[in-house]
Amino acid sequence: MIERIAIFGTGLLGTSAALALRAAGFAGEILGWDRDEQQAETALSMGAITSVARDPFEAAPASQVVLLAVPVYATLDWMEKLAPLVGPQHLLTDVGSTKAEISTRAGHLFNSPERAGFLPGHPMAGKERGGAALGDGELFQGAVWLFTDDPAWQRSPASLALASDWRKLVVQMGAKTIDIDPVRHDKLVGWVSHLPQFVATALSALLQEEVGEAPELKDVGGRALREMTRLGASPYSMWRDIALTNSEPVRAALFALEQRLAYLRENLRTPALRDEFEQANRFRRE
Amino acid sequence: MIERIAIFGTGLLGTSAALALRAAGFAGEILGWDRDEQQAETALSMGAITSVARDPFEAAPASQVVLLAVPVYATLDWMEKLAPLVGPQHLLTDVGSTKAEISTRAGHLFNSPERAGFLPGHPMAGKERGGAALGDGELFQGAVWLFTDDPAWQRSPASLALASDWRKLVVQMGAKTIDIDPVRHDKLVGWVSHLPQFVATALSALLQEEVGEAPELKDVGGRALREMTRLGASPYSMWRDIALTNSEPVRAALFALEQRLAYLRENLRTPALRDEFEQANRFRRE
Repeated sequence: MIERIAIFGTGLLGTSAALALRAAGFAGEILGWDRDEQQAETALSMGAITSVARDPFEAAPASQVVLLAVPVYATLDWMEKLAPLVGPQHLLTDVGSTKAEISTRAGHLFNSPERAGFLPGHPMAGKERGGAALGDGELFQGAVWLFTDDPAWQRSPASLALASDWRKLVVQMGAKTIDIDPVRHDKLVGWVSHLPQFVATALSALLQEEVGEAPELKDVGGRALREMTRLGASPYSMWRDIALTNSEPVRAALFALEQRLAYLRENLRTPALRDEFEQANRFRRE
Repeated sequence: MIERIAIFGTGLLGTSAALALRAAGFAGEILGWDRDEQQAETALSMGAITSVARDPFEAAPASQVVLLAVPVYATLDWMEKLAPLVGPQHLLTDVGSTKAEISTRAGHLFNSPERAGFLPGHPMAGKERGGAALGDGELFQGAVWLFTDDPAWQRSPASLALASDWRKLVVQMGAKTIDIDPVRHDKLVGWVSHLPQFVATALSALLQEEVGEAPELKDVGGRALREMTRLGASPYSMWRDIALTNSEPVRAALFALEQRLAYLRENLRTPALRDEFEQANRFRRE
């Protein structure tokens, strides 16, 4: 039974996970640490965490589960730093957006009988802006929470039990878990998550140049424009690590979309336009 | 004072306009005609129109205002057919998505003292699916309703008064009116309305090929993916005329986005990515 969790990074996801754990009935301790102590204080004042951890290197070994809720490179960095401090009685898990590098590192640094377990995870939930103050205990309701667990890993009995308990908590937070190979994960999210983000960024940046100086003209686009550019508000800080750790799948997806837009552009006045609309309609059918 | 309006096309926009007129307190008659009589019967059963017009060629001259709520080519067609049947005591107006061709035709066929007035209009509201049954009296609340009126047109006093009354009704329906030159209109909507639609179509069609066979994987994209592909459900029938009557602005916008995506793709690992995100962020700032 998990009784003490440390959350590293009490931004949007970390704080939301803490609130969702509370809402799911988790009654144990939740220590929160953030590089920006103000974020941890906010999470504390929201009742998400039970205390602010002053020293992360003490908090991690003092907890059974450590949830790394920081960008991908920071996750990789914490994996290196924490590996010597934790052991077979610990489980680490994360919420990083790309999984190939994290999973490879997890195999090297953890997941043998004498070491801590590391269960790579990725909840498909978020908002276009970050920060503890936007934390939301309902964020994972109905969302998919991906795991890239490797059946070949040999975990200690204690860390196996903790991983099983963590999966149950994730389901209690309202998420639906799916297990997937890490390389397949990165390709898949390249299509269904990263591509939509980069399209929204490119579209917003382009429109800022074309109509940005005339705010009343933004209203003309109405709900459709607002939806198609909402992700334009996403901060670079959240996406830099994704671009760096998933470059090839994202490049392939962007290139495919460029080709598709060119095809559409060349066929605005031909019957092929109908086929494109019908193909798109199929994607939106249940 | 307008007491009798004929609506040609009781699909989503025509039925919504009728419901919005009712909600705004319009107490006169609303005749509804649709190529598909079932759509008109639905609008009648919803209390949107007061009667179904069996003969459009009788209904138009028997009304003070005719609202053409059909696709662009059908609008152009009705303009030709109705011009000989109406006179200086009438006003025609429309909701067509492109305005250059309609406005040119309006100058030739209408808008002289001895002819009917024609006020080209375009409410920036809609849904990704059409039909009377989805009609919504709140559809225009907070939306922009564009007019491409030409100050050089010499309208009869009666049609001038009707145009002024129609503008008031549009405001009472909850819309904000903006006057704009028709060529500028088409360029603008090419950017803020047509480009987002064609991007959503291309993205949805591409994703249908990549992950369409595995519906559980669509869930992985969550809210962001749903928003970015919602317009993928838009029917070809609604967009064919837009593609045909606004080809050049749409081509230019699509080409610009292709370039922007290629730039982003080439800069996934350079600091230029930060500039793109920051430019996009500016578009979403109030």
